[in-house]
Amino acid sequence: MTQGGDMTSAAPHPAAAAPHPYTAHTSPAAAPHPHTAPTPPDVTIAIAPHAAPVADVPRRMFGSFVEHLGRCVYGGIYEPDHPTADEDGFRGDVLALTRELGVTCVRYPGGNFVSNYNWEDGTGPREQRPVRRDLAWHTTEPNLVGIDDFHRWSRKAGTEIMLAVNLGTRGLKAALEELEYVNGTPGTALADRRVANGIPEPMDIRMWCIGNEMDGPWQVGHMTPEEYASAVDKVAHAMKLAESGLELVACGSSSAHMPTFGTWERTVLTRAYDNLDFVSCHAYYYERGARSLQDYLACAEDMRGFIATVAASADAAREANHGTKDIALSFDEWGVWYSDVWNRQEAEWKAAAAEGLHHEPWPFAPHLLEDIYSAADAVVEGSLMITLLKHCDRVRSASRAQLVNVIAPIMAEPDGGPAWRQTVFYPFAEAAHHARGLAWAPAIDSPKVATETWGEVDALDAVVTWDERTRSGLLLAVNRDVTAAHGVTVDLAGLPAAGGDGVRVARAVVLHDDDPHRQNTADAPETVVPRELPVSTDGAGLCFDLPAVAWAAVEFTI
Amino acid sequence: MTQGGDMTSAAPHPAAAAPHPYTAHTSPAAAPHPHTAPTPPDVTIAIAPHAAPVADVPRRMFGSFVEHLGRCVYGGIYEPDHPTADEDGFRGDVLALTRELGVTCVRYPGGNFVSNYNWEDGTGPREQRPVRRDLAWHTTEPNLVGIDDFHRWSRKAGTEIMLAVNLGTRGLKAALEELEYVNGTPGTALADRRVANGIPEPMDIRMWCIGNEMDGPWQVGHMTPEEYASAVDKVAHAMKLAESGLELVACGSSSAHMPTFGTWERTVLTRAYDNLDFVSCHAYYYERGARSLQDYLACAEDMRGFIATVAASADAAREANHGTKDIALSFDEWGVWYSDVWNRQEAEWKAAAAEGLHHEPWPFAPHLLEDIYSAADAVVEGSLMITLLKHCDRVRSASRAQLVNVIAPIMAEPDGGPAWRQTVFYPFAEAAHHARGLAWAPAIDSPKVATETWGEVDALDAVVTWDERTRSGLLLAVNRDVTAAHGVTVDLAGLPAAGGDGVRVARAVVLHDDDPHRQNTADAPETVVPRELPVSTDGAGLCFDLPAVAWAAVEFTI
Amino acid sequence: MTQGGDMTSAAPHPAAAAPHPYTAHTSPAAAPHPHTAPTPPDVTIAIAPHAAPVADVPRRMFGSFVEHLGRCVYGGIYEPDHPTADEDGFRGDVLALTRELGVTCVRYPGGNFVSNYNWEDGTGPREQRPVRRDLAWHTTEPNLVGIDDFHRWSRKAGTEIMLAVNLGTRGLKAALEELEYVNGTPGTALADRRVANGIPEPMDIRMWCIGNEMDGPWQVGHMTPEEYASAVDKVAHAMKLAESGLELVACGSSSAHMPTFGTWERTVLTRAYDNLDFVSCHAYYYERGARSLQDYLACAEDMRGFIATVAASADAAREANHGTKDIALSFDEWGVWYSDVWNRQEAEWKAAAAEGLHHEPWPFAPHLLEDIYSAADAVVEGSLMITLLKHCDRVRSASRAQLVNVIAPIMAEPDGGPAWRQTVFYPFAEAAHHARGLAWAPAIDSPKVATETWGEVDALDAVVTWDERTRSGLLLAVNRDVTAAHGVTVDLAGLPAAGGDGVRVARAVVLHDDDPHRQNTADAPETVVPRELPVSTDGAGLCFDLPAVAWAAVEFTI
Repeated sequence: MTQGGDMTSAAPHPAAAAPHPYTAHTSPAAAPHPHTAPTPPDVTIAIAPHAAPVADVPRRMFGSFVEHLGRCVYGGIYEPDHPTADEDGFRGDVLALTRELGVTCVRYPGGNFVSNYNWEDGTGPREQRPVRRDLAWHTTEPNLVGIDDFHRWSRKAGTEIMLAVNLGTRGLKAALEELEYVNGTPGTALADRRVANGIPEPMDIRMWCIGNEMDGPWQVGHMTPEEYASAVDKVAHAMKLAESGLELVACGSSSAHMPTFGTWERTVLTRAYDNLDFVSCHAYYYERGARSLQDYLACAEDMRGFIATVAASADAAREANHGTKDIALSFDEWGVWYSDVWNRQEAEWKAAAAEGLHHEPWPFAPHLLEDIYSAADAVVEGSLMITLLKHCDRVRSASRAQLVNVIAPIMAEPDGGPAWRQTVFYPFAEAAHHARGLAWAPAIDSPKVATETWGEVDALDAVVTWDERTRSGLLLAVNRDVTAAHGVTVDLAGLPAAGGDGVRVARAVVLHDDDPHRQNTADAPETVVPRELPVSTDGAGLCFDLPAVAWAAVEFTI
Repeated sequence: MTQGGDMTSAAPHPAAAAPHPYTAHTSPAAAPHPHTAPTPPDVTIAIAPHAAPVADVPRRMFGSFVEHLGRCVYGGIYEPDHPTADEDGFRGDVLALTRELGVTCVRYPGGNFVSNYNWEDGTGPREQRPVRRDLAWHTTEPNLVGIDDFHRWSRKAGTEIMLAVNLGTRGLKAALEELEYVNGTPGTALADRRVANGIPEPMDIRMWCIGNEMDGPWQVGHMTPEEYASAVDKVAHAMKLAESGLELVACGSSSAHMPTFGTWERTVLTRAYDNLDFVSCHAYYYERGARSLQDYLACAEDMRGFIATVAASADAAREANHGTKDIALSFDEWGVWYSDVWNRQEAEWKAAAAEGLHHEPWPFAPHLLEDIYSAADAVVEGSLMITLLKHCDRVRSASRAQLVNVIAPIMAEPDGGPAWRQTVFYPFAEAAHHARGLAWAPAIDSPKVATETWGEVDALDAVVTWDERTRSGLLLAVNRDVTAAHGVTVDLAGLPAAGGDGVRVARAVVLHDDDPHRQNTADAPETVVPRELPVSTDGAGLCFDLPAVAWAAVEFTI
Repeated sequence: MTQGGDMTSAAPHPAAAAPHPYTAHTSPAAAPHPHTAPTPPDVTIAIAPHAAPVADVPRRMFGSFVEHLGRCVYGGIYEPDHPTADEDGFRGDVLALTRELGVTCVRYPGGNFVSNYNWEDGTGPREQRPVRRDLAWHTTEPNLVGIDDFHRWSRKAGTEIMLAVNLGTRGLKAALEELEYVNGTPGTALADRRVANGIPEPMDIRMWCIGNEMDGPWQVGHMTPEEYASAVDKVAHAMKLAESGLELVACGSSSAHMPTFGTWERTVLTRAYDNLDFVSCHAYYYERGARSLQDYLACAEDMRGFIATVAASADAAREANHGTKDIALSFDEWGVWYSDVWNRQEAEWKAAAAEGLHHEPWPFAPHLLEDIYSAADAVVEGSLMITLLKHCDRVRSASRAQLVNVIAPIMAEPDGGPAWRQTVFYPFAEAAHHARGLAWAPAIDSPKVATETWGEVDALDAVVTWDERTRSGLLLAVNRDVTAAHGVTVDLAGLPAAGGDGVRVARAVVLHDDDPHRQNTADAPETVVPRELPVSTDGAGLCFDLPAVAWAAVEFTI
């Protein structure tokens, strides 16, 4: 249906093929949610008989993102002095939570960071690596972690790498050299350098981002649509000359609110169509960035429009090239980010620094973007994941940004402290472990909620997946209504498996807090966790209540 | 008449000034052609009294091409284990045949190869040179031969070098550094590096190609017309700042069938007019690429149109710049190439490789493009050479592609085997050794042959050269008629030398086989060779018969 | 009033804050000018009461320029074998005259030179630095002086550095690396390299030129307006990411006579507005380049129009960006240059070299552009300085080109010879030492002189500065009339200080020779020097005569 790569067929690592079982850290501690007063059913979610699925769920939908930013790398995945650190300096507690999160693919090493990065700096003996200034986040980069190390980490985490090349200060030549170093068969100079650095086998990195957010005026080496179209066409073409089977991602717009949004995609995809497989989408949301909590909860509407617009641009590029393949979407930065905090921080720092020359700080691994998430944030991320899955015919890869410490599901305390799960950990982990097989976008008949931004939208949203191999399915649902609980009836009769013994619930959880702003913290990391959701079944039907501002998952068999 | 450089005035090497005498390897073994039944004269070829010559024949018209491709370099010019190899590892048999071929100037090192080439890789001690992947032909490049070595080879071969710089992965800076290394007077860092590498004198390379086929979507770093115009203008300008007397060649269209053909030339030549001397033309032909054998035999019509269009673009650029100099044409890739074989090979290889990552082969010196030529192919190449000579007022340089093994007149057997001459060797060698002085495009009155592509065209084509110094001339003629022999009468009364003792034939040969597809092979390398052509003379006239599908040369004195 | 940087607030070096007192080398030797016959007053120069000043006089208005060109560096500021050379090889006599000249800021290292310069070549141990060819001036560059050394020289000279980066053969990456090397806090690889090279503290260079004259077809890597707009936007943005407080200068047009003048400024400033502080202007004048001596003397009219056009472009760019800051003008090449001599030299050299390959000379430190200035030249430079000061609201930086030997106020004789002052030394030094505080453009009522180029223009021009801190002022005036002397009455009543004890003259000098072409020479270096100017005072008024073709300065207190 789409040409976007599906990691199931590639299965580069054993661990990815057999993901860590998600045995619900959530259940033991969590009693059923107290909100048990029955709500009259007012929502129906139905898969009509013979309804076509959207597409197969791509394994890469459950990607994450590790950027050299703040404490994501240093003090996040890497902290050699930590009690749990292994022989490579990687924190064992973070690795364990990464596996528990079910991450399949990790974008690396940026983000804005990559646009002034020399990949060579992070290779070879650590003591010979240069210390650099990172211009994107104004930090000192000691290059103790680079592609050599991240490759080792990924093997341990069981994750694929999605590698970004620098189009800010470098270009075609450096990209080709990096590709040879990373994937080259021994026998040429750069592949042999990798071997000498202790990695005899090619890293087999298949998916590459050609630059990052090159439309953004904040980006080192930012470009016009025409400039980037020219650059990505050359780089992607030459990389594919060097290696078959690569899947290449062009930068799309940094957000749907960029002045060149649309123009950018049309220009880039039309010119470089032959050499591209993916176009990226990036979107972040947070409550203060919305007109109200209700609008914030409905922000998946923005993502939906974003996907539709970019898909239309990709289709137009296909037509203009008389092509047959579809360019897929790689939604490779998404999630909740309190970006106003960073913007304020940066403005203050710039105002102070403008007093004189180079008085700005170049700290090492500072606390940056360490947003602490609420119950509402987890519901929003659950809602965004539902939207991605409902569009998995076009969105063939996605990376929730980021993995550790920096706008992250996993927080890693410094000074020997533990790692813990933020609220947003749970909706991601549930989908990553259980959304398998094919995805259906069910018909939803729901009361509406009023938003200022998108008008009236359904209170409920949901997606269903069904894996014929294991004969198990997953329903993911959110109640985006700020005020009202809703009673939900689900009709799964249209699933290909239906008509057997009827639906049986394997496990059902709900994430909700009567205070939607309640957070997990380092001291109380299990304040907001999924709890058991009472579900009744009736043939091909499920029936349950969802409180206001809630995310739920029902694992079932038929 | 034109500003294009004429090697006769430059005469960089003794051997070029005194080319190896072409003592007709052909004659001893070859009896007169058996097709001797007289044909009624139906063709007249005449130089009218006081007819103006086209121009002087530029020595560079007899150029060839050595690309790092297949076995052209490794196993071609260079094979240190070969019984004939000299102290530099160069095959002596190939060197001897190169001199016999009469090559004057050799384009190096590509071709597509150059667009991802680092010139430094091929310099200095061989044991320190890096092994690279060549993206253009997917081979492993050990860099055992580079500019240091090719300079030495060229001195032995008596050939000028026409050096191409990499505009694919590199640009202005690398081009300037290469120029300093190659031609710099000792005393600066890069010139001294050349001295340290054993070449104390500047290499004196005068003619440089600024990139290769940058319009081709297959090219590493391919460009739009505007992008290339900008790049070539900068590079050519800076190279001329660095050195006077350079002759610089801009890429023209890769063929007359490119979508940007014409636009490319206008855009590039108009913008960079001041800094350019030549624009390149490339054209290949083969029977399966034509609508019929008859059309194939008439493919010089395509070359003629190509030359006219590019010359018009060069004139338009001159006018737009209010200039006085003409930009000359460098037809630096021409010949017969069975390109469908390569295209099929590449498609198969890509289909196989797409199964997985980097499974494509990176062989060393594989058998690539080793086309074996027929009698008809030789007639076609003879016809193309006639066309080039008839337009030598605008075409001031040409390189038949390539020299050894790869679509080549010279085949070099591996494993200690011999080198031998393909059919196309002969028309080239004849012109290279004997087309001297001035060229005339005679008036031709010939029966027509019907082509699907160009309608009715003359069955016969011919060119005449006359060297006043030696008072010797050459008539080259082809009978492109697939079916009929023709009787030819030649009137040379218009030559400035006429009116003396009358024309005397010094030597006359014809290349023809009743089976136009008959080939020379490694086992039977003298199957198709020129044979003596019976010619009668009468004052300023010559009279002879040409069988169907034949090439002929008449060397004469007056 | 403008956002262009004012060095008074930055005051990077003690010596700049307390410039060498200009104790008038001129007075001892020079008797009052003999032209003392009273001229009837026909010119009034008046500052009306409450007239607003133009702006504060920026310290950077008195900048100079040291390019690696001819003997400006080698044999100019640097000559280790000279009797006055210090431990770093710098000539003490040149350093002393530089301080006497009052230079505040020096642009370095080019000029055209920078467009093929590697900044790294001029760093580290001298014996390891590479010898290069400079393409701009066709000389051998031994790199004995580079940024390490020029930083040391500048500390001794008490001057700020205005550093230009290479946009010809390099770009963004090299600029960022140079910035880190020059200004970086120790602890990163490149800053530590500087420390290792003996410069522990950051050089604190604030003002950077992003390339040089990139519009000029003579420039290595010359660009279209669009190309440069793209390049400067990227480089300036990234440099400012790396460091706050930088002041960045975009190339403007190389002269007001370039075909892209105006278009260039609009295109560049509109696109890169957010990241720029200055746009450069360059203008040179000489008598043979004008229609007459009278026109030459009036060439400040050209400069005035240049400033107005560029300022309007900067304003248009501000409007197009809805911006609030003004982009200031950096008039960073100005002065008298007999450019026809160089053009003829270069043409002859090229004609000779075109005979063969690389026969052009690559001399070391040749005598190039060593123009010897006349009295008229000094009057013209005095007039240009007046124009710059009258527009100091927009012109916030200026560099008279160049400092030593090359179109220079200071000549340094070779072979142990002395350094001496050209005629143009004096008007510059007077302004550099005494034009302080605020500048006024007075109302001028003057007889006209007829020019062919600009029609009728005022014979007299003048500017007034007033420094409230020291309660001292300066009147600079020129009589541009080729034939007539004029009597001048100056009314300073509008100065904020007026109404006190009345004006008192502290010192008054005039530079004039009855032969306007008379020069200083190495043998007679004090032929044309300022002499005492008789000035009568009356309350807020001054009264003096100016001979034809004369420059004068009146230092006063109130």
